[in-house]
Amino acid sequence: MIGKIKAQPGKRAELIAILGEGTGAMPGCLAYLIAEDAKDADAIWITEIWDTQASHAASLALPAVRAAIAKGRPMIAGFELSAETRPVAGASFVGDRTRLGA
Amino acid sequence: MIGKIKAQPGKRAELIAILGEGTGAMPGCLAYLIAEDAKDADAIWITEIWDTQASHAASLALPAVRAAIAKGRPMIAGFELSAETRPVAGASFVGDRTRLGA
Repeated sequence: MIGKIKAQPGKRAELIAILGEGTGAMPGCLAYLIAEDAKDADAIWITEIWDTQASHAASLALPAVRAAIAKGRPMIAGFELSAETRPVAGASFVGDRTRLGA
Repeated sequence: MIGKIKAQPGKRAELIAILGEGTGAMPGCLAYLIAEDAKDADAIWITEIWDTQASHAASLALPAVRAAIAKGRPMIAGFELSAETRPVAGASFVGDRTRLGA
């Protein structure tokens, strides 16, 4: 999945922190990349890779995820883009977790 | 960086294979995720994370990347979206490379 979230003006950093807190340990989540849009000060990009759709669906019931959604919702101005994607085996690779500052 | 490429009709799989070939060993590339759009049969999503902009710029001169660009260009119908992004340390994490089928 790839999504673009628009934060309320001035709330992006706080929303990113909340997203980071809530998504630290989600069974079946192979990648959860949060990035700032370099040109739009309110925009956040998220790239998610899950082993199955069921794992993703189950994550929405996790206490930490539910808490993050509740906490973050007031800071969300809108969802500008949401694409369902299928990572392509053999053509996708992922760098070193530690170097991403995780 | 997050980009959405539109392949010529029927050429997505071939283009993805070319992208995968050319991007296997790029110094400074922390993540290079290629995914199919699940709803648009011609669309490819790419999420890239680089340690520096200079590393990304340098990659465009790598023989394998230049070859992939030349080989793939005829199969590209257009670049529908290209966002420059800044991965956020501490809020980005990446799953297990091996489980992504790399």
